[in-house]
Amino acid sequence: MTTTSPTGSASGAPATIASIAAELGVSVPTVSKVLNGRADVSAETRSRVETALQKHQYRRRTQAVGQRSGPLIDLVFHELDSAWCIEIIKGVRRAASDLGVGTVLSELGGRHRPQQSWLDAVLARRPLGVLLVLSRLEAAQQYQLESRSIPFVVLDTDGEPQGDVPTVGSNNWLGGLSATRHLLELGHRRVAVISGPADVLCSRARIDGFRSAHDELGVAVDPALVRYGDFAVEGGYRHGRDLLDRPDRPTAIFAGSDMQAIGVLRAARELGIDVPRELSVVGYDDLPVAEWMGPALTTVHQPLQQMAAIATRMLVDLARGETVDPPRIELQTHLVVRESTTVPPTNA
Amino acid sequence: MTTTSPTGSASGAPATIASIAAELGVSVPTVSKVLNGRADVSAETRSRVETALQKHQYRRRTQAVGQRSGPLIDLVFHELDSAWCIEIIKGVRRAASDLGVGTVLSELGGRHRPQQSWLDAVLARRPLGVLLVLSRLEAAQQYQLESRSIPFVVLDTDGEPQGDVPTVGSNNWLGGLSATRHLLELGHRRVAVISGPADVLCSRARIDGFRSAHDELGVAVDPALVRYGDFAVEGGYRHGRDLLDRPDRPTAIFAGSDMQAIGVLRAARELGIDVPRELSVVGYDDLPVAEWMGPALTTVHQPLQQMAAIATRMLVDLARGETVDPPRIELQTHLVVRESTTVPPTNA
Repeated sequence: MTTTSPTGSASGAPATIASIAAELGVSVPTVSKVLNGRADVSAETRSRVETALQKHQYRRRTQAVGQRSGPLIDLVFHELDSAWCIEIIKGVRRAASDLGVGTVLSELGGRHRPQQSWLDAVLARRPLGVLLVLSRLEAAQQYQLESRSIPFVVLDTDGEPQGDVPTVGSNNWLGGLSATRHLLELGHRRVAVISGPADVLCSRARIDGFRSAHDELGVAVDPALVRYGDFAVEGGYRHGRDLLDRPDRPTAIFAGSDMQAIGVLRAARELGIDVPRELSVVGYDDLPVAEWMGPALTTVHQPLQQMAAIATRMLVDLARGETVDPPRIELQTHLVVRESTTVPPTNA
Repeated sequence: MTTTSPTGSASGAPATIASIAAELGVSVPTVSKVLNGRADVSAETRSRVETALQKHQYRRRTQAVGQRSGPLIDLVFHELDSAWCIEIIKGVRRAASDLGVGTVLSELGGRHRPQQSWLDAVLARRPLGVLLVLSRLEAAQQYQLESRSIPFVVLDTDGEPQGDVPTVGSNNWLGGLSATRHLLELGHRRVAVISGPADVLCSRARIDGFRSAHDELGVAVDPALVRYGDFAVEGGYRHGRDLLDRPDRPTAIFAGSDMQAIGVLRAARELGIDVPRELSVVGYDDLPVAEWMGPALTTVHQPLQQMAAIATRMLVDLARGETVDPPRIELQTHLVVRESTTVPPTNA
């Protein structure tokens, strides 16, 4: 089926913005405003214009590509995976929507450093600002944004932020500390940790919290039980199998992310190790799915939606030329105890 | 810290596009193209311009909000939840990115019919097109897009699509049929189904497939075992508890989505019912997490990323004025058998 040509006007000629304006006795800009979804037209006029557009089967001749757009921010993930991203997207989208700002989503294909082609698309789009999740810009790229007056905020930095780059994160060190302290206080003495990638700042902070809890309680850390994963299920599974296959296997694993905890639960199931009776497991993030796992996951709650909303508001403030003070915000994390942790088995 | 004012130029006056162009012996439009991330500038010129911008600490005076943008499509979810959305987003984003198109993400706050405020934002943005996921436009809203020459495609329709609206979906009826046939062929005679909301087309199609499989094998359907959920974990849990609390409880549940299957697994765990020994469970979607569940989920694979990519290409074709033929595409679904299904318990 091809589209029928517009034939609605009385004279047989296609309706134009001008002919519709004349018919209704309103100005051409008024019809144009309605077409462009502008708010500064009365409801009554708006409704009359819409009715006339429909009556005449008005069609805008050409769709002017990229001619205009409402204000947008760019939200950039290094990789879209798992429900973790959904929490961030939700927080950003709601805050942006409240501010009347649209959200453009992009992904760096797994790289933590954007490619120039991505940056070119951003420059062409001229967003209000860029929100980078777990990613970092090279100094030259940072400058490219600055020179176009496109501010950026980093959410959950993957490394030591440079200069005065605004960042929003949560207290990863405290998260690692509270998860590990919980396990040690339950009586576990062989506790393993599977953190995220070693080159990502929050992974290292969680491991440092893990070590601090050991220091606090005077328990030695076995280096063989300290692992760096990938925050994904696979990494949790792989390290989980490896740790649990050891003759001196740990009685508890702090899994570094809920996804990795799911991988550890799988590894334990395959080896016939009961959680929590024979193995305690702590996740990280407290994604909605965590409480539904079997057993429901004890995990470190990270306020992802709130972090994302704060970063979004910060970005829009910067875009308006306001000073953001302080430029670095860190929200608190806290432990949520559910079913996956208990005292160590008596024979351990 | 406040921003330092630009003072890079030799004369002490802030650098302008014109002064930089003059210094480099290139045209003003060339400098402007580099600033806007346009591709039609040689790599060498581009690099010279960037160096000069940086040397002079050039800053664009005002960020012209919404003045220009690359081509965009609008991706609209009725609600952002679970890893199901991530699969769709991935498919859309990759296809859009290959076509040099950005993706604006929005959400209708749980409603399947967009509000006018959302539509106004879209009209103001003038995207290439709109991709609606499990949502439907009122006739008047449909017309509002058509009159602005903004095409739209519906992914996984929630209802009978009207007129010649292009749609991309998958064969839900066949999915329901193959899931149920698998359970009946294993010997189950009391099979329950928890589908999605009753007013969503794909939910009804899955239930019809469930009935057809029963007809095929001459097994009567007990109406008490036919349920409509919400595709979310909670719905699966609630109906799962209710079904499994019955004295004549089913020996198998086709859970309608992987999320609902997670809820059913939880309900079974709470009641001490072993899956699959005492209860077989089939999911739907085959999200990445399905294979990691305990037990790994038997589920109906729905090619969500592929559906999303096809819908995106269709939308961009329509935006280019091409005819899309056929305007309705349905991809195949297939059953993936894992660990959550087996023969019914002998005492059932």
